[in-house]
Amino acid sequence: MSKRVYFFGNGKADGKADMKNLLGGKGANLAEMSSLGIPVPAGFTISTEACNEYYALGGKFPDGLEREVVDCMAMVEQAMGKKYGDPENPLLISVRSGARASMPGMMETVLNVGLTSKTIPGVIKRTGGNERFVWDAYRRLMMMYSDVVMEKAAGLEPADGMGVRQQLDRLLHEEKARRGHTSDTELTAAELKNLCEVFRKRIKEVLGKDFPDDAKEQLWGGIGAVFQSWNGRRAVAYRKIENIPDNWGTAVNVQSMVFGNLGDTSATGVAFTRNPATGENIFFGEWLINAQGEDVVAGIRTPNPVNKKSKTAEQEAEGVKSLEEAMPAAYQQLHGIQSKLESHFRDMQDIEFTIEDGKLYLLQTRTGKRTGTAALNMAMDMLDEKLIDEREAILRVKPSQLDELLHPIIDPGAEKNLKPVAKGLPAGPGGACGQVVFTAAEAVEARKRGKKVILVREETNPEDIEGMRAAEGILTARGGMTSHAALVARGWGKCCIVGAGALHVEGKLLEVGGKQFKEGDWMSLNGTRGYVYEGQVPLMNASENPRFQKFMKMADSFRTMGVRTNADTADDSRKAREFGAEGIGLFRTEHMFYGKGSQEPLFFLRKMILSQTLEERQKALQELFPFVKRDVKATMEVMDGLPVTFRLLDPPLHEFVPQSPDKQADLAKALGISVDDIKKRGEDLHESNPMMGHRGVRLGITYPEVSEMQIRAILEGAAELIQAGKKAIPEIMIPVTCEVNELRTQKVLVDKVLAEVKQKTGVKEIPLKYGTMIEIPRACLLGDKMAESAEFFSFGTNDLTQMTYGFSRDDIGGFLPDYLDKKILDADPFQTIDQAGVGQLMKMAVEKGRATRKDLKVGICGEQGGDPASVEFCFKTGLTYVSCSPFRVPIARLAAAQAAVQAKA
Amino acid sequence: MSKRVYFFGNGKADGKADMKNLLGGKGANLAEMSSLGIPVPAGFTISTEACNEYYALGGKFPDGLEREVVDCMAMVEQAMGKKYGDPENPLLISVRSGARASMPGMMETVLNVGLTSKTIPGVIKRTGGNERFVWDAYRRLMMMYSDVVMEKAAGLEPADGMGVRQQLDRLLHEEKARRGHTSDTELTAAELKNLCEVFRKRIKEVLGKDFPDDAKEQLWGGIGAVFQSWNGRRAVAYRKIENIPDNWGTAVNVQSMVFGNLGDTSATGVAFTRNPATGENIFFGEWLINAQGEDVVAGIRTPNPVNKKSKTAEQEAEGVKSLEEAMPAAYQQLHGIQSKLESHFRDMQDIEFTIEDGKLYLLQTRTGKRTGTAALNMAMDMLDEKLIDEREAILRVKPSQLDELLHPIIDPGAEKNLKPVAKGLPAGPGGACGQVVFTAAEAVEARKRGKKVILVREETNPEDIEGMRAAEGILTARGGMTSHAALVARGWGKCCIVGAGALHVEGKLLEVGGKQFKEGDWMSLNGTRGYVYEGQVPLMNASENPRFQKFMKMADSFRTMGVRTNADTADDSRKAREFGAEGIGLFRTEHMFYGKGSQEPLFFLRKMILSQTLEERQKALQELFPFVKRDVKATMEVMDGLPVTFRLLDPPLHEFVPQSPDKQADLAKALGISVDDIKKRGEDLHESNPMMGHRGVRLGITYPEVSEMQIRAILEGAAELIQAGKKAIPEIMIPVTCEVNELRTQKVLVDKVLAEVKQKTGVKEIPLKYGTMIEIPRACLLGDKMAESAEFFSFGTNDLTQMTYGFSRDDIGGFLPDYLDKKILDADPFQTIDQAGVGQLMKMAVEKGRATRKDLKVGICGEQGGDPASVEFCFKTGLTYVSCSPFRVPIARLAAAQAAVQAKA
Repeated sequence: MSKRVYFFGNGKADGKADMKNLLGGKGANLAEMSSLGIPVPAGFTISTEACNEYYALGGKFPDGLEREVVDCMAMVEQAMGKKYGDPENPLLISVRSGARASMPGMMETVLNVGLTSKTIPGVIKRTGGNERFVWDAYRRLMMMYSDVVMEKAAGLEPADGMGVRQQLDRLLHEEKARRGHTSDTELTAAELKNLCEVFRKRIKEVLGKDFPDDAKEQLWGGIGAVFQSWNGRRAVAYRKIENIPDNWGTAVNVQSMVFGNLGDTSATGVAFTRNPATGENIFFGEWLINAQGEDVVAGIRTPNPVNKKSKTAEQEAEGVKSLEEAMPAAYQQLHGIQSKLESHFRDMQDIEFTIEDGKLYLLQTRTGKRTGTAALNMAMDMLDEKLIDEREAILRVKPSQLDELLHPIIDPGAEKNLKPVAKGLPAGPGGACGQVVFTAAEAVEARKRGKKVILVREETNPEDIEGMRAAEGILTARGGMTSHAALVARGWGKCCIVGAGALHVEGKLLEVGGKQFKEGDWMSLNGTRGYVYEGQVPLMNASENPRFQKFMKMADSFRTMGVRTNADTADDSRKAREFGAEGIGLFRTEHMFYGKGSQEPLFFLRKMILSQTLEERQKALQELFPFVKRDVKATMEVMDGLPVTFRLLDPPLHEFVPQSPDKQADLAKALGISVDDIKKRGEDLHESNPMMGHRGVRLGITYPEVSEMQIRAILEGAAELIQAGKKAIPEIMIPVTCEVNELRTQKVLVDKVLAEVKQKTGVKEIPLKYGTMIEIPRACLLGDKMAESAEFFSFGTNDLTQMTYGFSRDDIGGFLPDYLDKKILDADPFQTIDQAGVGQLMKMAVEKGRATRKDLKVGICGEQGGDPASVEFCFKTGLTYVSCSPFRVPIARLAAAQAAVQAKA
Repeated sequence: MSKRVYFFGNGKADGKADMKNLLGGKGANLAEMSSLGIPVPAGFTISTEACNEYYALGGKFPDGLEREVVDCMAMVEQAMGKKYGDPENPLLISVRSGARASMPGMMETVLNVGLTSKTIPGVIKRTGGNERFVWDAYRRLMMMYSDVVMEKAAGLEPADGMGVRQQLDRLLHEEKARRGHTSDTELTAAELKNLCEVFRKRIKEVLGKDFPDDAKEQLWGGIGAVFQSWNGRRAVAYRKIENIPDNWGTAVNVQSMVFGNLGDTSATGVAFTRNPATGENIFFGEWLINAQGEDVVAGIRTPNPVNKKSKTAEQEAEGVKSLEEAMPAAYQQLHGIQSKLESHFRDMQDIEFTIEDGKLYLLQTRTGKRTGTAALNMAMDMLDEKLIDEREAILRVKPSQLDELLHPIIDPGAEKNLKPVAKGLPAGPGGACGQVVFTAAEAVEARKRGKKVILVREETNPEDIEGMRAAEGILTARGGMTSHAALVARGWGKCCIVGAGALHVEGKLLEVGGKQFKEGDWMSLNGTRGYVYEGQVPLMNASENPRFQKFMKMADSFRTMGVRTNADTADDSRKAREFGAEGIGLFRTEHMFYGKGSQEPLFFLRKMILSQTLEERQKALQELFPFVKRDVKATMEVMDGLPVTFRLLDPPLHEFVPQSPDKQADLAKALGISVDDIKKRGEDLHESNPMMGHRGVRLGITYPEVSEMQIRAILEGAAELIQAGKKAIPEIMIPVTCEVNELRTQKVLVDKVLAEVKQKTGVKEIPLKYGTMIEIPRACLLGDKMAESAEFFSFGTNDLTQMTYGFSRDDIGGFLPDYLDKKILDADPFQTIDQAGVGQLMKMAVEKGRATRKDLKVGICGEQGGDPASVEFCFKTGLTYVSCSPFRVPIARLAAAQAAVQAKA
C-alpha cells in the first residue's frame, strides 16, 4: 500500500497543489502554502484513497494507517512545540473533511480535539490562565463531537430532529436565560464549566455512552466521523446536484488548532483575492474579532469588512472597523500573502485565516467560487494583466455561468422610482421576482407546481440546499458574504441577499419596516445591490455588456463548430441572431398553427385535419398556405444570409383536435359539421403511444399534399425574398425518418415543387438543402443509407433518447427520480446526452453518413444542444453545428470554443 | 449489351434450367426440355433483363432487341417449317410471361398471335379447311389482344369494370343466345366469322383504334403488354403477399402455337408427376379434348383425369374417359416424358401439354406447388427412392407449410355422422369452418373484424386473391384441380374445394341440395375429401402423423440451434413439449393474473396496485404469493429437466386497473375503498406512452417487493420440486432493461431470496440462471455491460422493433399499410426481423455480450421467433435458441434445421 498520510507545516510539505485527487483541495493547498513559506498551522492529511479503503473495509481503518498518523503527529508536535494529549503543553487539533471538489458545509468538522480532563489544566496554563476560553472551547468540542462523532457517524440521529446537538443547544439557551445573558460571550468561566458538566450528563443520557476523555479516542473518533460524513444525507444530495462521483471520497485534514477567540488580539476571517460577486480586483473579505472561523461561516454574527476599500457607505457611517484599521500589521502581512497566492495559483483565491494573539495563520486557500459576472470580469482583467492567456481566459468562465449574464436583472428604470423595504448584503447578483415561501420544502413544492418563489429564511443551513436550488432568489436575515447561503447561491449564479438585519421572520410571517409578507406574497430582489422590494418589479436582460461581447468574440475566434438556434418566429430568430446564432437549426412548422379565430392558421389546420376527402383537404391546405408562407418568409428575411432549417409537420394530428366538448362544439359550428364528426375523427386519430405513432414523415407519406403545401410555402417564400435581393437559404428537414425510402418519397415532392416555383417566379437558383432529423435509432443504424438521399442530418436527441432508452419523456416522472436516487443512472439523459448509448448511435450515424457523403452536414437540434457537456461531445463527434434555444446560444458558443481550446491543448 | 433473346426448339436451346433469373422459370425449363429432346413447340425467350431495360427506358424497347427477335424468329420458322406472317404457311405464336417465381394467372398471355386477314386463309388451308377452328382462334385473339394489349397495357382500363373484354364477352353471349346455343362450341364457322366483324367494330368504338391486322405489330404489341403486365395491379398485389422483389422483372416467351382444339384428335392438359395434394407417387393430371390450355386453367370446363388411377369413384361411375383410355399412344409418350422430367429435375414437376392432331407437345414444366402434406410425403418418398438425400429432403418442405400439417382437419369422429350437402374436388387439404361470404372484399372486411369466413364463388379469378387469403377456406362451383383457385389455395396450404357443380350461387345466396346459405351462415369444408357440410363441424389437429414425426426427427439431427416455446400455463407447456420444445423461452408472469372472484389472483394483484402504503402492498403480495407459486411450479413440473425462463412482471400497472365505472364500483366494494380512490390511482398510473412508461424492470426498481415476491415464488417452487425428485431449471429474466445497474439492483434481490429459500427448504443447489430481455436499443448498444450481470440474453424483438423504428405496434394501422403499398418498407418488421436495422442491433448485442461473457446464452422470444426467415437470421447471428408459440415450434425446428443444412452446403 502506498503512503496514506501527508505532513505539512514549518515551510515543508509531503504533498503539493496538484495532488488534489489524493489529498482533497484543502489538503493539497495547505501543503502548497506550507512549501511556499506561508504560515499554516502544522498538520497532516489522510488521503482520499484511505477513505475509499475505509468504505471497502465496511467502515474500518486500514492496517498501517495508525502508524503513519502517529509518525506525522510527532512531526506536527515538533513543528508546533506542543504535544498531543500532554498534560503540560497540550496540542489541540481540528479534524476536517477535504474533498477534491469543494462541498461547502456538506461534511463534518470537529474542532478543539484533544481537550480532556488531563489536558485542560495545561491549556489553561498555556493561555495565561484564560479559563473562560478553555471551558468555552470544551463546550464547543462537546457539542460538535457528540453530534458529529457520537450521534451522526454512529447512525443514531433521531427522525424527530431533536438530536443531541439540538438538546445541548437548548441547554445552552436555558443556561443563558437563567443567568440573564443575551449572548454566548457573556457566559462566565464558571458558568461554562458548569454547563460542560450538564452537557456530559445529557450526552450520557441521550446516547448511552460517556463523552470520551481520552485524546487518542477523540482523534480517531473525529477521523472516522469525517469519513462517515462523505456518505451523509446532505453530502449525497449535494453530489447529486453537482454531479460529483461517489467514489472520489474525502481526505481528512488533521491540523493544529489556532484560536481566533483568545481575546481582542485574536481574530478570524475569510477573504477573496478579488471580489467574488463582481470580479473587481480588490482584496475583499470579512473578519470577526475574538471569534472562531465557524462563527464567520455559520453566519451567526455579522462580520466586518477586512479593509477600508470594501466597506459599504452604511458600514462607514456605522463606524464599522476593518481589519486594516484594527490590526494593521496582521492585515499587511495578510495582504502580501493573498497577493502571493493569487500570483502563484494564477486565479482568484478564497482564503481562511486566523490571528492568534497577533500571529497570523492561513488555514485554507482554494480557487474561489464566483458569479458569472465576476468570472467574466476576472478572466478579462487577468488577460489584461497578462496573468493568463486567451485560451485560459476562455476556460475561466463556465458556460453555464453565462446563463446568469443573460438572465434578468431588476429593470433599472423601474427600480429608480422604488424604495426598498430592506437592505442586505449583495451575495448573489442579478434580479429575482417571486412569491414568498418560508421553508425549503415549500420552495421545492411550489417549484414543482410551476411557481416562482423567493425563499426567505432567518439564515440558511445545508439542509435547505434543495429549496435554495428551487427558488428564484434567496433572502436571509443573517449571515455575511461568505455565509452558507451566499456561497451556495453564488456557486449557482442565483440571486441572493443575506444579512438583511431588518427582517423579522416568525413562522410563516415576515415583518420588515412595518410591512408584512405572508406566504404567497410577491417580492423582488436586486441581488447586485442587496435591495429588497415589495411586489413584482419588472426584470430585464443584461447581455449587452461590451465586455461580454468582447469575451464571446474571443471565444468565437477559437471555436470551429457552428452554433445555430431553434426558433419558430421572426422575433425569436432576431433575438437568437443577436445572441450570435449562425442560422436556424430547427424551425418547427407546427408552431405556426395558432390563433382562436375562424380566419387564423389553427382553424384552417383543423379544417384540413377534419376533411373527409382529398378535395376538402386540399381546399383547407390552400387556405392555410398564405399563413405558412408569410411566417416562413418572415423568418428567412430576418436570417438573411444564414440558413434556416424548416422541419415539416411533426406532431400527430390528434394534438390539434380540441378535446373539450365546448371547444368541439365551437369548432363544429364554425366548420359547419357535426360534433360527432369531430369526436369521431378525434377517436380515429387517438393513439395508444402517440410518440411512436402517425407523425412526422409518416404524415407526409399518407398525406403528401400536406408536405407539398409546406414545401411550396418555403420555396415560394425563399424565391420572393431572392427576387427582393435578400439571401434566403432554406433547408427542408424531414422528421421521424427510419428508412431512406421515406426520404426519397418526400424528395420527389420537393423536386416537383422546386421546379414549379422556379417556373412560376422566374427565380433560377434557390440554394436549397434537403435533409432529415435523425431521431429514430434505425436511422442511425442505417446512416449510410439515409445519407444517400439526405444532404444533412440533424440529431433530434430528445426523441432519439426516448427511443434508445424506451423512456417516454412524458411518463418518466413515475420512475426516473428512483433511477437517479438509486444511482441506476448517473444523470437525466434528457438533460445531457447519454454518451454511452445515445452517443454511440450518434457516432455511428456520423461515421456511416459521411462514408456515403463526405461533406454531409451534421447538426443537433435536441434540447441537449445547449448543454455544455453535450456540446463538447458533439464537438468530439465531429458535428458541423449545434442548435439550441436562443437563450442558450452564447452558452453553446462558449462550450464549443472551450472544446476546441481543450482539443488543441 | 449481352444477349437478350434465347432460342429453344428442335432438340436445341440457347438457355438451360439454371438460367431462371434471366429467362424466368418457364423459359429456362422450355430450353432445358428442348435440350433433353422432349418435344416443345419452338420459340424464344426475351430475358428479364430486357424487361428491366424496358422499364428503365420509360416503357421503350431497348435498341438491338428487334434484331435478335428477328434472328430467333427465323430459327423458329425453320424448326416449325412455317413462316410468321406468311400467307401460304403461316406460323402462329403465343406470347407469354415468365417470371423467376411462379405467379399463376397474375400476368398476361396472348395466344394465336399472327392471325391477320393475310394469314387466315393460309391457316384455313393448312388445317384442312377447318374454318370454324380458325375463326374461333381469331375471336379468341381479338378478345385477348384487345383486352391485354390495346386496353390494359395502354392504361385504358375503365373503373367500372366494363372494359373491352367484358363487352366482347357480352356480345359473345348475346350471339349464342340469339342462335339458341348453350355452349361456345355450338357456334358455327359463319357465326364466328360474323362475330369477329362485330368484335372489330366494337373494339374500334371502345378503344378508338383499329384491331391490328399486321403480324409484326401484333407480335410487338404482345411483347410490350407482357412487360407491362409485370406492373399490373394484380401482379403487384401478388408480389406483395409473396414477397417477390419488384426488380426481378418478367421474361417473355414467344412460342409457336400448337392447337389442342383442332378436333377430337387434339387435346390439352395439365399434369403433376405426383399428386400435389397428397404427395402420392401417381402421375396425376387433367385434360380436355379439343380445347386450348386456357380452358383447363381458367376452370371454364371441368376437365377429366389423365389416367385411370386418378379417377374418382364418381368419375368412374359417370364413365368419364381418361387420356390413357382416349389416346393411349399419346398418353404413354406423355407418361415417359413426365417420368424423365421428374428424374431429371429430381422433384415433382407441374407440366402443361397439348396434343395437336395426335402429336404431343410439352408447353411447360416447372417444380410443382404442393400442399404441406404432399411436400412432406414427397420428401420422404423421394428419400426412400434415393432420388434425394436427407439434406435435400429437409429442404423440400417449407417451414411455413408445416403450419398446414399442424392446422386443423375436420374431426373424423364428428364427420362420420354427417352427410355432406355437396361434393367437389379436394383442391386444398385440411378442414375449415366459417361464415359464408360471397365476395373477396367481404372476406377481407370480415377478417378485419376478426371473423372466420368461407369464401363461396362461382369460380375465382386473380382479382379475388386478397379475399382468398383472408378466408379460412374457399369453395367454388366450377374449375378443376388446376384451376386458379386450386393453385393459389394449395400454394398457401389453404383448405379449398373446387368444381362443386351442385352449387348454385346467385348474388348473396347459395342454393345446394335444397338448402340455402345466406351471408353469415356457418359452413364447414373437408378440403382433403372435397366435402361441404352445413354448420360448424368440430376441427382437430393432424400433427401426430408418424411420417411427420420421422421427418422432424431427421431435421432435428441436423439442427444445431435450440428451439423453445413461449408458454404461460402448464397446459401450453405440455403441448409445446409435444411439439418438440426444448424448454420455455418466455413465461409471461402477468398472464397468471386472471379470475373474476375476490379470492383469485387478479383481485389480489389489483389490491396490491391499489395499496396506499408499503405495508398494504406487502400484505397483498403475500396473498398473491401462493397463486404465483402454484402456477410457476406447475409449469416447471411439466417441463421437468428443461429450462423455464420466467419473465418478471412486464406491463404497466394501469393495465390491471378496471376502466369501466361498473367494474370500478365492484372492485371498490370488494376492497373496501372508495371508487374515487380507484379512479385516482388509475389516473395516477395513466401514461401518455405506456409502451415507454413505467413497466418491466422499472416497476421492479420502484416496487422491489413485487420482484421479490415473484422471485420467491419461482425459487420456492423450484426447491419443492427438487425435493420431490424433479429437475426444475428456473431462469429469471428481467424485462425492459436499458442499463446494467437495473440488472445489478434486481440481482441483489435474487441473491437474497435464493439464500433464504435454500435456508428454508434445505435444498442445497437450485440450478438458477439470471438474465435479461434485450428489447431496448440501448441494451444492445451496451451489450458488453449488460453481460456483466446477465448470464443470458433473450431478444424481445417485438419491443426492440418498436423502439428501433419508433413504431407503436398498436398504432401502425394509420400508416404501415401505406408504407407497404408505397414500397417504403419491403415487409412488416413485426412479422419478420428487419435484418438491416433491428438485426444490426441484435448482432451488436451478441458480439458485445459474448466479448464480456464467452458462454453467454442468447435467445429470442419475440413473435418473429417462429418466422422462418427470422429463424435463419438468428442461426446466422449465432443465437443459442429461438422461442416461439407452441404451434410454431415445429416450424422453427425445421427452419433452424434448414439453416444448418444450408450453412454446411
